Amino acid sequence: MRRTITGFSNPTVKAIRALRDKKHRRRAGQFLAEGLRLLTDARENGHLPRQLVMATGRDPHPLLDELEAAVSAAGGEVIETSRDILSKITGKDNPQAVAGVFDEFDTSLSSLDRSRSGIWLVAQALRDPGNIGTMLRTGDAVGAGGLILIDDCADPFGVETVRASMGAIFTQQMAQARWGDFLVWLRRAEGQLVAASLRDAVPYRGAPYAAPCFVLVGNESQGLPEEYETACDLRVTMPMRGRADSLNAAMAAAVLSYEVLAALDA
Amino acid sequence: MRRTITGFSNPTVKAIRALRDKKHRRRAGQFLAEGLRLLTDARENGHLPRQLVMATGRDPHPLLDELEAAVSAAGGEVIETSRDILSKITGKDNPQAVAGVFDEFDTSLSSLDRSRSGIWLVAQALRDPGNIGTMLRTGDAVGAGGLILIDDCADPFGVETVRASMGAIFTQQMAQARWGDFLVWLRRAEGQLVAASLRDAVPYRGAPYAAPCFVLVGNESQGLPEEYETACDLRVTMPMRGRADSLNAAMAAAVLSYEVLAALDA
Repeated sequence: MRRTITGFSNPTVKAIRALRDKKHRRRAGQFLAEGLRLLTDARENGHLPRQLVMATGRDPHPLLDELEAAVSAAGGEVIETSRDILSKITGKDNPQAVAGVFDEFDTSLSSLDRSRSGIWLVAQALRDPGNIGTMLRTGDAVGAGGLILIDDCADPFGVETVRASMGAIFTQQMAQARWGDFLVWLRRAEGQLVAASLRDAVPYRGAPYAAPCFVLVGNESQGLPEEYETACDLRVTMPMRGRADSLNAAMAAAVLSYEVLAALDA
Repeated sequence: MRRTITGFSNPTVKAIRALRDKKHRRRAGQFLAEGLRLLTDARENGHLPRQLVMATGRDPHPLLDELEAAVSAAGGEVIETSRDILSKITGKDNPQAVAGVFDEFDTSLSSLDRSRSGIWLVAQALRDPGNIGTMLRTGDAVGAGGLILIDDCADPFGVETVRASMGAIFTQQMAQARWGDFLVWLRRAEGQLVAASLRDAVPYRGAPYAAPCFVLVGNESQGLPEEYETACDLRVTMPMRGRADSLNAAMAAAVLSYEVLAALDA
């Protein structure tokens, strides 16, 4: 059953809008995703929104009808509201016609299924939400199992991250951990930890990659701490023909992931 | 000689601030770049700002002193102003301590020096300023000659593009052209046009790349028009293990550029 909301000061609107803020996301354990495409990706991967918010005057779409039916059947709430209110909720001048409120996933290391793929992406202290979203998307492209966020990374449930992931937040598994805990978890089973590095490293092409391979990139400006690199099984370096730090962290992860994919497939 | 500006409504402040807007950039033929790192990259590559804007209370830095001296010697203007006004100019809450106003470069095809490199990046209808900045940065990393923007791309002199390029806007050559004009220019000399494609394509690894190689990627959501792909000398495809369009255009360009770099070096 649909509920219609017309007031900006409606408490439900306020609560959903507050999910743009990290503190409120933590408290609610929920996050916001926008757009029919993303919400359809979510549904296909077993994630239904608790609340589905649709704009009045939207174009009808069979996928949206299916989504609405699925949300209702699962006991979720379907809300119809104005474009203006949806714009206020999402913070965009031209909001998508639909948004959803999802429960945050379990991001403990123990929630990961290591047998899922031979490639995993690992990011340390990555601060840019767009970079995290892009890494999720790259992970999806190479068929990685998921993304592990080490130390203080940007919030993977932030609006910008979710947007930049283009739906991959729903296809990739995700964990958050401190470095020490990650290492203990990693060494409990087979797994090769590979650092994108400038120190004591072999060329990234033709390096002896082995599955399951965990591809680790460091912070956008500092790179990886030296002791983290030392703990890796393999350090690889990519040619830099321009200024030393000219490759974006998410780019380096993409180039390296495709190299690992090719090596494991060979 | 330094000039001090204290008023928000000062016409110079207004004129510089207006450069955040494309229309005003076109009219003035100038653009804005922020940060000592970017401005130093600019200087090292032969670009000095017409106007150098510095915040009062900034930390002293020898590179900033050198920059100021160089701008003054070249007849440029050095302006000292408050953090608040600098924040207003750059649109950032925590602005860098320094910004510069640069003349836009000549972006005609004839300004390109084809002998400069064996790799060039080409983007068609790329709409995201961040993607264009990232492609410039990738170009810098692989030692490309520059970036050619085909049809209606985001403005390469926009604040977001310049920021995302991390200085590569000053190290890479750049041209803007319609497709037809680009093809005429390309075919006037040797050059292999390679499309990142899903149609009738060979695997991107081990494809017969040849210098000078022009790596072409298409619009973020539509990809390349079919007739553009047909005009290419080589169409290559990358594995997509996730959803079909899961790779970001700038990511695809990076993975492909590194492959071309390795092939040409071999």
